Amino acid sequence: MKFKAVVLLSGGIDSSTTLYYVLQKGYNCRALIFDYGQKHKREIQSAKKIAQLAGVDYLVLKLNMPWGGSALLDKSQKIPQGRIHRKRVPSTYVPARNIIFLSYALSYAEAIAASVIFIGANAIDYSGYPDCRPQFIKTFQKIVDVGTKSGVEGKRIKISAPLIKMKKSEIIKLGMRLGVPYEYTWSCYKGGKIPCGKCDSCILRKKGFKEAGLEDPLWKR
Amino acid sequence: MKFKAVVLLSGGIDSSTTLYYVLQKGYNCRALIFDYGQKHKREIQSAKKIAQLAGVDYLVLKLNMPWGGSALLDKSQKIPQGRIHRKRVPSTYVPARNIIFLSYALSYAEAIAASVIFIGANAIDYSGYPDCRPQFIKTFQKIVDVGTKSGVEGKRIKISAPLIKMKKSEIIKLGMRLGVPYEYTWSCYKGGKIPCGKCDSCILRKKGFKEAGLEDPLWKR
Repeated sequence: MKFKAVVLLSGGIDSSTTLYYVLQKGYNCRALIFDYGQKHKREIQSAKKIAQLAGVDYLVLKLNMPWGGSALLDKSQKIPQGRIHRKRVPSTYVPARNIIFLSYALSYAEAIAASVIFIGANAIDYSGYPDCRPQFIKTFQKIVDVGTKSGVEGKRIKISAPLIKMKKSEIIKLGMRLGVPYEYTWSCYKGGKIPCGKCDSCILRKKGFKEAGLEDPLWKR
Repeated sequence: MKFKAVVLLSGGIDSSTTLYYVLQKGYNCRALIFDYGQKHKREIQSAKKIAQLAGVDYLVLKLNMPWGGSALLDKSQKIPQGRIHRKRVPSTYVPARNIIFLSYALSYAEAIAASVIFIGANAIDYSGYPDCRPQFIKTFQKIVDVGTKSGVEGKRIKISAPLIKMKKSEIIKLGMRLGVPYEYTWSCYKGGKIPCGKCDSCILRKKGFKEAGLEDPLWKR
């Protein structure tokens, strides 16, 4: 019997690579996709497409966060251009986003008796979000261990972030080997017809492909 | 200027008492009410009524947890009768419920720059849920500290569970002094017209009023 895993899937480079990586490890995967009011709704279509191409069952969950508080959510706030200064948490930070995402994944994982939750969080070529760092993942594991039925009954659900210490270029090289259809992924925070090329997410993507010495297949579509 | 607080409000004894306690402390409160598919939807009406009577702004958030996994959610599972054996987590446990609730409260608190989140969790006269215990609250505080913008920037949001070590009778006595309108609260897991009197939540409520030497005003309505 295959072990069950819940994989958070946003439709970007990191989560799509994580999905393919986990499938290759032999897990029986369910993808969890969030529609949380992001301006770049396009990524939801990408996530669905990736799940379909990977042959994985997925759920799209609509979340209510009416309070906003992020340039990714609020119409009144513009998406910042250029590489973000890493000393401060940027305006694209969504309050408690990954905590909410992982909480849902945890609820889902407990209900279907999955043994691992995979998240594509990355703390090297990233936008400086506190909820993408190793110490966050480590602390969330503690919440799983003390705050859930499975945790206290000894059937621990593991939180795994296999890409957390990898450079974007390394993630892309891994994904290329695994056959991730990057042409269907989406990174741009603006979510227009074509990537803006100027937001932090576009810049990180470009840098990743450049350092990997590869062409981004998104532009070939 | 009053400090802002987000208070989780279910419409039961504990969260209603917490709300009145926090108001008396002088906080500017916002109540957060969850519609998560619970069979006892009645408690949502109770929570709204309590917030209105307390003169507090509230938000009702609809959550999607299509996977169920609890006697409080699944039609196929009956609400158990009689006092629950505390050595096992009961079937009324909802996978990761308080983790999801606190995550939303945290997102809301960050967005409105609240300084405290209050939860009516209680680990004395309770149903044995792991996410109601002091060690859970303590661990969630760590998540706030490492996983949020406010945490890493030194504007720590505190997670406070003021009733956590109180007996139900002590909570009721406190609430009576504070004028909590217990006649409008709701505890029964079944959510019928009148409380079933047999579920764990009804039993705990009855025990609390009995030990406090008080009559439950719910029956006078």
